[in-house]
Amino acid sequence: MTDPQDAIDAAADARAEERDPRIAEQTAGEIQDGIPFIGAGPGDPGLLTVTGKELVETADLVVHAGSLVNSELLDAYCDDAEQVNSVGKDLEELVPLMRDAYEDGRDVVRLHSGDPAIYGAAVEQMDALEHEDVPTYIVPGVTSAFAASATLRTQLTLNGVANHVAFTRPQGKTLDSENDHISDFVEKGDVTVCIYLGTHAVAETMDRLVEDGADPDTPVAVVYHASWPDEDVIEGTVDTIGDRLDDAGYRASAMVVIGPAARKAGYERSYLYGDWANGSDTDSASEADD
Amino acid sequence: MTDPQDAIDAAADARAEERDPRIAEQTAGEIQDGIPFIGAGPGDPGLLTVTGKELVETADLVVHAGSLVNSELLDAYCDDAEQVNSVGKDLEELVPLMRDAYEDGRDVVRLHSGDPAIYGAAVEQMDALEHEDVPTYIVPGVTSAFAASATLRTQLTLNGVANHVAFTRPQGKTLDSENDHISDFVEKGDVTVCIYLGTHAVAETMDRLVEDGADPDTPVAVVYHASWPDEDVIEGTVDTIGDRLDDAGYRASAMVVIGPAARKAGYERSYLYGDWANGSDTDSASEADD
Repeated sequence: MTDPQDAIDAAADARAEERDPRIAEQTAGEIQDGIPFIGAGPGDPGLLTVTGKELVETADLVVHAGSLVNSELLDAYCDDAEQVNSVGKDLEELVPLMRDAYEDGRDVVRLHSGDPAIYGAAVEQMDALEHEDVPTYIVPGVTSAFAASATLRTQLTLNGVANHVAFTRPQGKTLDSENDHISDFVEKGDVTVCIYLGTHAVAETMDRLVEDGADPDTPVAVVYHASWPDEDVIEGTVDTIGDRLDDAGYRASAMVVIGPAARKAGYERSYLYGDWANGSDTDSASEADD
Repeated sequence: MTDPQDAIDAAADARAEERDPRIAEQTAGEIQDGIPFIGAGPGDPGLLTVTGKELVETADLVVHAGSLVNSELLDAYCDDAEQVNSVGKDLEELVPLMRDAYEDGRDVVRLHSGDPAIYGAAVEQMDALEHEDVPTYIVPGVTSAFAASATLRTQLTLNGVANHVAFTRPQGKTLDSENDHISDFVEKGDVTVCIYLGTHAVAETMDRLVEDGADPDTPVAVVYHASWPDEDVIEGTVDTIGDRLDDAGYRASAMVVIGPAARKAGYERSYLYGDWANGSDTDSASEADD
């Protein structure tokens, strides 16, 4: 097998020359040839997509992200498939495992938590598999920030209060301090900051925010295991949330939502062309133009 | 009926006094009493969640966001339900319509495009309904940025290249220029900037980016109707994308992805505790701590 980093670099070089024709030929959500990298969603089996469920149900081999994927989902949809936990396995072990199964004619799926686009390690596996002539593709999913927002009965954008959303991480083992933008995002005042973070790191992250001049009274909500049966919500402010989390005693990852949207505070009714209710995910201006 | 803005303000005041007990009692993804505000996903019927599909299939009345929701999804899942297009209807019309149907014992669902947390107008409808004693809740969905990322066969975060993601909008009819942060986000270099934008506004947004000092060669990919049958991808740079979009002739909304992740360029294999493959949506540091 080719060294994985060499495979990644070769794939990048190839992309610089010529774009993958599948980008133009296939649409998101289409079932394609090869191994799907499926966003399992935040945890609740019902928050997997219809297509994701279909692929998982018919799979012979499901490689999943261990404790990050709710075992209820595996039990519900692929109890009879071979299941491999990827945690603790490196590229050199996982790529041949998936390749060999695929070449043996088995239906293989890779199940990542949330959506693979956000803090996943999907594309490096995909590039390594493609280099071994195994086609791959992504099936998008619901990220845990959206489940957290649903639990909080709010939106991450709120008219007049929260105009933007940042998905971010603080400095730590995987990020240098100069690439930690959390204070910049919070400082803008109208950015809802969603941090995919181990709860143990929340207190120090909040301390840095205060040192950088953030308002200590800025609302913060932490949603632990959003959409799981043991989901929990701890609310506070930049000043208080660290202690409250320590009291709660959680050690695993959680979704940290910073900003007024976390409390659905003070938003204004939207008036877009007398048509405030025309839905999400778009600029209604363009619709009005149609 | 109470004036909607008064209802919104009353709900905000109530929240400041006492948190909604359902935040602690219900988990995201649970089917609850009341009217669900469902994220329809980016377009493809297979990218609706399993729970969303179940609710839409059993609904008597589906209020949907018109042309923002793929009609194929409505045809596939609720052809026999009463369907109401919300576009052009204001709060004063929609709230009594949903309230009366709910009080008549009908199963009512509200279908927003993408996920309701992102540039939706869900919570103002929810607050107005709750004020009329109609319970509501959110069922999260897949946002179009994740479908765009799947189409581009990339991630929005890429190790060593794109550490953060911003969902944002430029200045325009709904946003003052001082709340337009696109240049700030792009300037950081490691933020993948996802803009929910009418294609007609892309060229001027790119012009402002260059005026503000952005590298004209920064990659930009525009995904039109991500996951729809007529999905299209136009690629270029901050310098070239405006003209290319004009040539393509699209007038509706699209997902604009700015940054190196749009071309999946130059990322590094992740080495997290010898455990790079442990999935998305979390800080693996916390997993290692468990």
